[in-house]
Amino acid sequence: MNKTIINQFKDVDLDEPIFIEALPGIGHVGKLVAEHLIHELEADLFAELYSPSFPPQVFVGENGIIEPMKNEFYYLKSAGEDKKDYIILVGNTQGLSPEGQYEICGIIIDFVKKYGVKKMFTLGGLGTGQPVDNPKVFGAATSNELAESLKEYEVTLRSADGGIIGASGLLLGLGMAKSIEGACLMGETPGYFIDADASKAVLSVLLQILKLDVDVAKLEERAEETRKMISKAQQMEREIAEGMRLAPGEEDLRYIG
Amino acid sequence: MNKTIINQFKDVDLDEPIFIEALPGIGHVGKLVAEHLIHELEADLFAELYSPSFPPQVFVGENGIIEPMKNEFYYLKSAGEDKKDYIILVGNTQGLSPEGQYEICGIIIDFVKKYGVKKMFTLGGLGTGQPVDNPKVFGAATSNELAESLKEYEVTLRSADGGIIGASGLLLGLGMAKSIEGACLMGETPGYFIDADASKAVLSVLLQILKLDVDVAKLEERAEETRKMISKAQQMEREIAEGMRLAPGEEDLRYIG
Amino acid sequence: MNKTIINQFKDVDLDEPIFIEALPGIGHVGKLVAEHLIHELEADLFAELYSPSFPPQVFVGENGIIEPMKNEFYYLKSAGEDKKDYIILVGNTQGLSPEGQYEICGIIIDFVKKYGVKKMFTLGGLGTGQPVDNPKVFGAATSNELAESLKEYEVTLRSADGGIIGASGLLLGLGMAKSIEGACLMGETPGYFIDADASKAVLSVLLQILKLDVDVAKLEERAEETRKMISKAQQMEREIAEGMRLAPGEEDLRYIG
Amino acid sequence: MNKTIINQFKDVDLDEPIFIEALPGIGHVGKLVAEHLIHELEADLFAELYSPSFPPQVFVGENGIIEPMKNEFYYLKSAGEDKKDYIILVGNTQGLSPEGQYEICGIIIDFVKKYGVKKMFTLGGLGTGQPVDNPKVFGAATSNELAESLKEYEVTLRSADGGIIGASGLLLGLGMAKSIEGACLMGETPGYFIDADASKAVLSVLLQILKLDVDVAKLEERAEETRKMISKAQQMEREIAEGMRLAPGEEDLRYIG
Repeated sequence: MNKTIINQFKDVDLDEPIFIEALPGIGHVGKLVAEHLIHELEADLFAELYSPSFPPQVFVGENGIIEPMKNEFYYLKSAGEDKKDYIILVGNTQGLSPEGQYEICGIIIDFVKKYGVKKMFTLGGLGTGQPVDNPKVFGAATSNELAESLKEYEVTLRSADGGIIGASGLLLGLGMAKSIEGACLMGETPGYFIDADASKAVLSVLLQILKLDVDVAKLEERAEETRKMISKAQQMEREIAEGMRLAPGEEDLRYIG
Repeated sequence: MNKTIINQFKDVDLDEPIFIEALPGIGHVGKLVAEHLIHELEADLFAELYSPSFPPQVFVGENGIIEPMKNEFYYLKSAGEDKKDYIILVGNTQGLSPEGQYEICGIIIDFVKKYGVKKMFTLGGLGTGQPVDNPKVFGAATSNELAESLKEYEVTLRSADGGIIGASGLLLGLGMAKSIEGACLMGETPGYFIDADASKAVLSVLLQILKLDVDVAKLEERAEETRKMISKAQQMEREIAEGMRLAPGEEDLRYIG
Repeated sequence: MNKTIINQFKDVDLDEPIFIEALPGIGHVGKLVAEHLIHELEADLFAELYSPSFPPQVFVGENGIIEPMKNEFYYLKSAGEDKKDYIILVGNTQGLSPEGQYEICGIIIDFVKKYGVKKMFTLGGLGTGQPVDNPKVFGAATSNELAESLKEYEVTLRSADGGIIGASGLLLGLGMAKSIEGACLMGETPGYFIDADASKAVLSVLLQILKLDVDVAKLEERAEETRKMISKAQQMEREIAEGMRLAPGEEDLRYIG
Repeated sequence: MNKTIINQFKDVDLDEPIFIEALPGIGHVGKLVAEHLIHELEADLFAELYSPSFPPQVFVGENGIIEPMKNEFYYLKSAGEDKKDYIILVGNTQGLSPEGQYEICGIIIDFVKKYGVKKMFTLGGLGTGQPVDNPKVFGAATSNELAESLKEYEVTLRSADGGIIGASGLLLGLGMAKSIEGACLMGETPGYFIDADASKAVLSVLLQILKLDVDVAKLEERAEETRKMISKAQQMEREIAEGMRLAPGEEDLRYIG
């Protein structure tokens, strides 16, 4: 396997869909939001992405069942008050190398562009490293107009305070070259645990922006269910990261073989 | 040398062979099992794999003889009670980079698929970091049916407790896309030494599953013979890993030139 | 996005332009010099470079506006006493991997060579790790003649004391193979803060060499303005670097998602 | 610059030359030997190799003159008692990534194979980390016959004690696939300084094997001359290695820009 591929197993007809990205990241803030949307709005899976820049491994899920590393594309037709179409991207991993991230995100942008995407929202967490009482939602956007509009939803604009690392940032950057405008919404989180509070804050903002109607309270239950599983996966990612520091060769000696 | 190649020097005719992978890893658990099978059942070498993602080095064996880094494919015809054919993969290394692992494992899957492989077993160790009295065999599989069947052989199914890193995991993941079902068997091991006990536990389970008849006791002798040699190789891998941390340039300054 | 590209949006006609490079580096010494030249001499942007070897991220600028990672080419016609043309390269990042740096710098050299470039100056800082009272300007060149000529401007020639790492060095090396002679001017700096003093020293030398007339004093104001913004960006780069040590997977868990 | 290239600027006619490799490594043992041979036997430069897997930098030599990273091929006609031809490979760097090392070494083997090379010697140091009184010469070879023949020259065969990392090992491994037999000679050295004693030991053995006549004593003078320059270069390599640990982005911030 030498390059990133998208395996599309269902043809879909979408009208200028809005693209929502929520790959794994700090506090799994974005991931919880997207999984909640997918479940509550009954979005349908229509394509999967595999990449040689993903970690060279598989996950073990419940009952010893093996799950490959992948990203998944879901779609929604005529959702919410505005009857808009959506493409939602989730997954169990992101690319490891810079070059891998660029390849993967470039392919994702080309894929969603085909469906007429003109606007995207990328979801994530902003780690504070400290306890957070009432998580704020931070934002940044590719245009001044879109950035200003975020303020209407009590989003705090970030300002020259660093950047947005990984797919949530890179997709926005690559989208700009393809005339896709977008914003990143980041829930304030201490990080390093499954943060349903930050997710609920992001979800509330997103629902208002998109005029979608979804039960926010249920997200807490989902967080609880997935907390155990995801925290295990996080631990494995840390082990991989640790292993990468030592070079894969040695990591393999420690973990498996 | 820019890409992974398989050098096949013998044509073989196999009937839906079962594929067994046991590349180097923790405690050399899988490697000992596979080498024992190859020796006791007199499997024949028929192809070798070389990759630019292997460590840039050679091993020095007994008597100062240089051995290149490689993976080796052995085959067996009509073995055991079920008269099944087998392909067994062993070697002295794995790929270093994620992209390299994907390239190598993708080529391996394509290669064995040509022979009609529909089922595979990948063998390894599960490191506990603590002394192990009576090593359990852990397992995970690509289907619920196969996972359940492992329980009949006293295999403890892993459950959402992380993942399987390296070739033992990735081959299963890539095999799924090619309709090859499979399972990983992992012997419980403290890790960081040649663990014949864990290997015997895995071998016993594998022999039952495959209905093969092999002297398990002899594995201890083989472990002793190879212990000295492999522990040296492990040390070099640690040195490489150390070197990778420092960047190859500096490593070269410390080790050789 | 699989390879480095230059997006040129304006045709320019240049007569044997002098090429000046000042990508981000220690103390942002070169970057401050080049940005001052661009502003004071009203250079025009005519091309941008994007690369998959840049960090996989975006910057957030003032007011929450997202800025992709890029390098920018400016030009100047008939500037200074000698009425020379110039190409000036600035940007918010450099390539991360060695292979990426070679690809990017190779493409840059090919691009400027098309315009007839025969001479280049690369600008940077030389970090001392200690307070610097009266920053010297250090230099090195691709020919003995050019090196000697630098002495006339009170440039201290470096001598077998290491090398020049990154684009400021590599561009000179790759230029040699394309018959482009060049020199690197490095302002002595403690490093790790925006060093307007080192920049002023480099600027003064450069203005003398090129017979350009620019207000050096104003550079201090510019340094102050950009100090806040750039120090934030630097912090993010440190975070990325930190993240790279942990492998991107884990970094993503900590920062964003 | 996307791939490794050899720039050959002189046609040479060689009769089954012996290939000697001595790229930079521990104690610069091999490098000193090869440079001494080249100087004393007046070998001629006929080709240079450049690679995007070399460190992205240049060296600064005496008088501020910039030197690109490269490997150099020298040749000798009818040298020594046996009137043999030789190709000698030296340089100021090695490839950084595993894939880079494989690409570079593969191209080197193809290049020398064209001239009819059937035998090679790779030269290096074996670091002990402790003071060495009377440096031994260690060896390993691609065939039992060649390994045994080394004993006649008081070479201590290494035995299952790890491996040979970097070009000195990989060239031997890749040569095996092209029917080039070879041996590695390693001078015992504490490492981390320019070790003329270890070099003299390796040189003495090599001269006996090849029946060449060269003044060994002069090597000490050459070591002294180059000691200052090379130790500076070593320091830079350490800085690069350090920088690589931090990711190139941060390294650039600290060193140059």
